[in-house]
Amino acid sequence: MTSNPKTPYLLTPGPLTTSAATKQAMLQDWGSWDHDFNQVMADVRAQLLAMAEAQDTEYACVPMQGSGTFAVESALACATDPNGSVLVVMNGAYGKRAAHILDILGRTCVVLDKGDYLPPQPEEIAVLLQQNPRITDVFLVHCETSSGILNPLEAIAEVVHAHGKTLIVDAMSSFGGVPISLAKTPIDVLISSANKCIEGVPGFGFVIIRRALLEAGKGRAHSLSLDLHAQWEYMERTGQWRFTPPTHTVVAFQAALAQHHEEGSVAGRCARYTHNRDVLVAGMRALGFSTLLENRWLSPIITTFLSPNDPAFEFSAFYAALKARGFLIYPGKLTEVESFRIGCIGQLNADVIEDLLMAIQDALTEMGVVFLSDARSA
Amino acid sequence: MTSNPKTPYLLTPGPLTTSAATKQAMLQDWGSWDHDFNQVMADVRAQLLAMAEAQDTEYACVPMQGSGTFAVESALACATDPNGSVLVVMNGAYGKRAAHILDILGRTCVVLDKGDYLPPQPEEIAVLLQQNPRITDVFLVHCETSSGILNPLEAIAEVVHAHGKTLIVDAMSSFGGVPISLAKTPIDVLISSANKCIEGVPGFGFVIIRRALLEAGKGRAHSLSLDLHAQWEYMERTGQWRFTPPTHTVVAFQAALAQHHEEGSVAGRCARYTHNRDVLVAGMRALGFSTLLENRWLSPIITTFLSPNDPAFEFSAFYAALKARGFLIYPGKLTEVESFRIGCIGQLNADVIEDLLMAIQDALTEMGVVFLSDARSA
Repeated sequence: MTSNPKTPYLLTPGPLTTSAATKQAMLQDWGSWDHDFNQVMADVRAQLLAMAEAQDTEYACVPMQGSGTFAVESALACATDPNGSVLVVMNGAYGKRAAHILDILGRTCVVLDKGDYLPPQPEEIAVLLQQNPRITDVFLVHCETSSGILNPLEAIAEVVHAHGKTLIVDAMSSFGGVPISLAKTPIDVLISSANKCIEGVPGFGFVIIRRALLEAGKGRAHSLSLDLHAQWEYMERTGQWRFTPPTHTVVAFQAALAQHHEEGSVAGRCARYTHNRDVLVAGMRALGFSTLLENRWLSPIITTFLSPNDPAFEFSAFYAALKARGFLIYPGKLTEVESFRIGCIGQLNADVIEDLLMAIQDALTEMGVVFLSDARSA
Repeated sequence: MTSNPKTPYLLTPGPLTTSAATKQAMLQDWGSWDHDFNQVMADVRAQLLAMAEAQDTEYACVPMQGSGTFAVESALACATDPNGSVLVVMNGAYGKRAAHILDILGRTCVVLDKGDYLPPQPEEIAVLLQQNPRITDVFLVHCETSSGILNPLEAIAEVVHAHGKTLIVDAMSSFGGVPISLAKTPIDVLISSANKCIEGVPGFGFVIIRRALLEAGKGRAHSLSLDLHAQWEYMERTGQWRFTPPTHTVVAFQAALAQHHEEGSVAGRCARYTHNRDVLVAGMRALGFSTLLENRWLSPIITTFLSPNDPAFEFSAFYAALKARGFLIYPGKLTEVESFRIGCIGQLNADVIEDLLMAIQDALTEMGVVFLSDARSA
């Protein structure tokens, strides 16, 4: 793994750098109605249920064309009670987006907004559920990539379950890279996407959802294309997607799943990503950068760093300098402080991170940002 | 081009057989927010407008993630007047689907249903528009792949325009393979997809739409993901897709566009597809098969053949026999007669069609369908 400005490493929460084997799986065309492709799809769905430790008697895995947001929208339309109220736990852009979708769907929302990056506490969710008995569903983002925070999913799931509510988890950027067990943690709906920790290419998302919720969701959809129940019902009956699937993306995803398995499944991938993050955070701190979050809230997915105060630092120049060295980083998404983000997922190892750190040091020197090492020695 | 059971030719209206160069374009990962990818997207949008002979001062090209149906749904939600009424001209599954979408959107519809395969006549549309002054929009499928009919788009467009109505055309399976000129034909909205006559891989569709209609469509969307106006507005402002695009599919599409240009653009491609169809239809008739449609309604996209009456003919066995010989054909979609369909689009030439015809003759012999040549000599 060496950096190359022509095919830069993608240090982002996706689309990310995928393996050659994953991309090479796209060198064949498939008939989307043919038995061979249906078998690929059945295998992918079964593997995703197994990865989530979800029993297929209780849960189903339903794919949805489009970006992860398309899957979130279809899941919210299907799983939330039109006569109930949804508690949206938000600490970043993806919680806000879910509330926006629910508003379009005409669902009533209660919002717990923790701002840009503070973690929601199980206790405050318990209080809200007691105060608002009309709440039927709770929506939580597992890893909120706006800040990179890993929210306390397991503790919140226990509280939601104890109150008898439905828990819908946006695990877009964490599933496959951070352990999530539906056998151990009471989650009713889990949403993720092909181009995150399973390291596929973008083109579809998927929803792992209790069969009882799918059945209850029949006829609830606001959209023909995003009708999750209809997609499931059609796929169960015919083995096919309801409308044309992104065939090449699906077979690339099957190849990515095989590599995920070879790497030791979620545990193996989590270990690599965590090591990437540890090398990154230690190296960046040694250069003088600060992380937005305390160590205990840092996800192994993406980390937010505060921009240096030095006026010589300007994000677009920093981005261009790193791109010229073969690395694409990610802009910040905070409303109050200047920041940028660096992802740890995809086909990256500690050597790549070390190369990135050298490129960052080079870029800072080139830009004339010198205070950082001063700050460190101060 | 030789047939191979392991990578069969796809004789269908898409996903179809694409070139090696198109698929090889997917061997690189791209940052969906990066300038380089934004330039690919800007180039693709400009090329699509040029292909439609649409002025970019009057029209915009807006892509939408997902299958073609996602693009149709987003276009109908944006372009149709919520206080008006839509005339849906239908003669197959895709017209029916548009009416279903409009029903979900809460739009009022007037339906002209010609059944399985009869062509709508401009005169009957004129009568309906006179009888129903509340009609604001007309929806027409150009090539209805249910039967393979090429509907009389230009004549209908003139009638719709003369009545001052908005014309929305589902050109999913025809655009790029059959000439359509927005400079010459008054079409307000044209919808197509990556994996049809431009010969890309599946993953997104696109809408070529009058800018005035896009602007009028602000706030009309029933869905966050399928909000065509918001997708356009965001892309105009940032150069980026609003939510994660299928990056690999997009770069494959750009490669496919280059090949489309090299082949002589729409005229070149139309000539190859038409020749494919002519060789196919002549060969099938020589074998004893009948086409559903008269010659003048046959599209160069896909042709429906009636199943032989011989009880030895059974579609699934015929399909399997052709698959074993390296060809995937398409089941029929008619409600009243047994039929099957064979597509002429994708990376196929007359040699492939000749090989297919030999494979069909082999398959019929293997199945013991002998009456056909008898019928021919009768």
